[in-house]
Amino acid sequence: MAKITSVSPLAPASFPNLPVIEGVRFASIAAGVRYSGRTDVMLAHLAPGSTVAGVFTRSATRSAPVLDCQAKIGRSGGEGAAIIVNSGNSNAFTGRHGVESVRAVTSAVADLLDLPVHRVFSSSTGVIGEPMKHERIIAKLDELKAELRADAMEDAARAIMTTDTFPKGSTAEVEIDGQTVRIVGIAKGSGMIEPDMGTMLVYIFTDAAVDQPVLQSMVSALNRTTFNCITVDSDTSTSDTLLVGATGASGVRITEHSIGFMEGLRRVMLDLAQQVVRDGEGATKLVEVSVTGAASDADAYVHAKSIANSPLVKTAIAGEDPNWGRVVMAIGKSGARADRDTLAISFGDIKVAENGWVSPDYNEERAAAYMKQPELVIHVDLGLGGGTARVWSCDLTHGYIDINADYRS
Amino acid sequence: MAKITSVSPLAPASFPNLPVIEGVRFASIAAGVRYSGRTDVMLAHLAPGSTVAGVFTRSATRSAPVLDCQAKIGRSGGEGAAIIVNSGNSNAFTGRHGVESVRAVTSAVADLLDLPVHRVFSSSTGVIGEPMKHERIIAKLDELKAELRADAMEDAARAIMTTDTFPKGSTAEVEIDGQTVRIVGIAKGSGMIEPDMGTMLVYIFTDAAVDQPVLQSMVSALNRTTFNCITVDSDTSTSDTLLVGATGASGVRITEHSIGFMEGLRRVMLDLAQQVVRDGEGATKLVEVSVTGAASDADAYVHAKSIANSPLVKTAIAGEDPNWGRVVMAIGKSGARADRDTLAISFGDIKVAENGWVSPDYNEERAAAYMKQPELVIHVDLGLGGGTARVWSCDLTHGYIDINADYRS
Repeated sequence: MAKITSVSPLAPASFPNLPVIEGVRFASIAAGVRYSGRTDVMLAHLAPGSTVAGVFTRSATRSAPVLDCQAKIGRSGGEGAAIIVNSGNSNAFTGRHGVESVRAVTSAVADLLDLPVHRVFSSSTGVIGEPMKHERIIAKLDELKAELRADAMEDAARAIMTTDTFPKGSTAEVEIDGQTVRIVGIAKGSGMIEPDMGTMLVYIFTDAAVDQPVLQSMVSALNRTTFNCITVDSDTSTSDTLLVGATGASGVRITEHSIGFMEGLRRVMLDLAQQVVRDGEGATKLVEVSVTGAASDADAYVHAKSIANSPLVKTAIAGEDPNWGRVVMAIGKSGARADRDTLAISFGDIKVAENGWVSPDYNEERAAAYMKQPELVIHVDLGLGGGTARVWSCDLTHGYIDINADYRS
Repeated sequence: MAKITSVSPLAPASFPNLPVIEGVRFASIAAGVRYSGRTDVMLAHLAPGSTVAGVFTRSATRSAPVLDCQAKIGRSGGEGAAIIVNSGNSNAFTGRHGVESVRAVTSAVADLLDLPVHRVFSSSTGVIGEPMKHERIIAKLDELKAELRADAMEDAARAIMTTDTFPKGSTAEVEIDGQTVRIVGIAKGSGMIEPDMGTMLVYIFTDAAVDQPVLQSMVSALNRTTFNCITVDSDTSTSDTLLVGATGASGVRITEHSIGFMEGLRRVMLDLAQQVVRDGEGATKLVEVSVTGAASDADAYVHAKSIANSPLVKTAIAGEDPNWGRVVMAIGKSGARADRDTLAISFGDIKVAENGWVSPDYNEERAAAYMKQPELVIHVDLGLGGGTARVWSCDLTHGYIDINADYRS
């Protein structure tokens, strides 16, 4: 089967103009880890005084780089830091060889940039279960160091792509006491979905000054309503990684009470999360599933995920069919509390079901016309309590089968 | 998109030769509930003295007929019983109108056959959310009664089909103290998967004499390792129904200690369950996922279902790709206990992974050749304890998208 090469119809018009974050420099290079004719390694260097926070996949079979990052993430210091990422091989389920690859690469980067090894974070994305040719990365480190530039972030976003059809970037500026703080981020992935691969990698940088525990708690909290609220096909990667680095170069100190900064960080995280869904394998529709009136927020999340992951709901969306019966089915099977007779379902502004039956005002033609939009909202009100959740998903199309039925070969 | 009309490549060669069960008669007819040019209603009549047991979907949005069956199933008596089933409309999420349809149909059948209404069970399968034209069924009841015959079970199996590509039947004979007891069953559905529809309906009959509580406890127990162990696409219906009727006509009394009878009933249930998967929408491969060595049976079941439902595993199987990395991913994401370094994975007899890495004996060509078989076994040993589970699933193909992206229209 052919590899899908055209850009997702849901891609943003262009890569955003990312401002320079003082204290962070990027480089990327073609090391031939697996791909040829394209860049596949990126290096980010953070100046001394930077803090780094992160969240990672909870998979029980997570990759060697993820385990290494988790062991290092809490340890902060006055030193600089580095992030080294390769595409083409996820270094997951690679036994002792995988641990050795991480040690070799991170040690070499530590020597290269004169950093303690616990300040060098690594990610790998690509095929699972094949030993990684890390010597190919190490051989290119001197060249990478020579290439480090503050304005090279878009190239870095390209170097970490696998089945992505477009590079993903986002930025926000926040005013705090009259001073400007900048946040930029890049991501790769098509949700929690990618075949054989390390799925989702996200790197965000800011020139704010944030203590590591404060940054970590913000990132962990915001992750719950951003990256943990997207799905493409319900398959969770062995390598999902989100790292946020704060250089402090703006001189603006952020505390746990900095609502403005958190909101800026949330916007960047949500934008990148939605870009990942927009690049969902085979996706032609971006779908927001909004659940209100649930018995609890946790119940709302379970219902929203059940709808967003249902193959029948996702194929109906692909077919532009306002098939609300499948939404009813997905609510019924979710396991969270629901009462058939208090349910209300809308597609966009069109109320389709209420009081345990189709809405008396429902007009199938209007609903069918709505389903032709590229961006859809499915809203469910359970009529039980105050619990809410929002989740973003995409449709399930022939493109998904094309990409995944023969990706590895 | 075209409706898929060819028979599943995994279908049995022919419908089995079902023996007559004394005390049960069947009839089917074309009532035009939704389809034209085919039968769409079946009636089964059980003689006085029969017992009936059942299990039903646990969906929170289950259909009106399911709720009605559940209210009636525990009530036994010396009277006969009847089962009336229509295809084309599931009578699910149809509010008060749906309840009225069930009452009208079951009351009319009770009058027709001189039964108390609590001994008339009904099922409906088809589109969700549209009011059912039950008057079309009632108008045909006299004709149905005139058609009742002991040897009309295959026609009954055809009348309850929706997107099924073949009728499903199974039978077993059991010798008990030198006497023969017969068990026969029919089913419709393609797993827990069918679009807009009532998914899976199963009716099993035996001439054994079994008290209702004994029959119910056997059926509930066996359901856990048969129908609850199949999946096509992880979507659970609003209408799943399994009814088992025992007429007692053989004169052979079954107690809770009748291992032989339970084994015969288990064989029929498992055969019908596997036939449902063989007719999974778009399916070209039948896959058994066998998990051993889990911390508990419950954990083994969670892992097996996670593998069996993973879109990435299912598309790899469609592509005949021995992509064991995706099996590792599915184990990792399941939430049940797993240790990457004690995992062992085999495809058929081919050991692919062990000790946290690819097996040293692994041969990709052999594995790729194995994946070309129509029936596959994926075996995972967790290396943690004595928990086991077996689950049956199918691949995810373009056929699934074809059928579901525009089924209703």
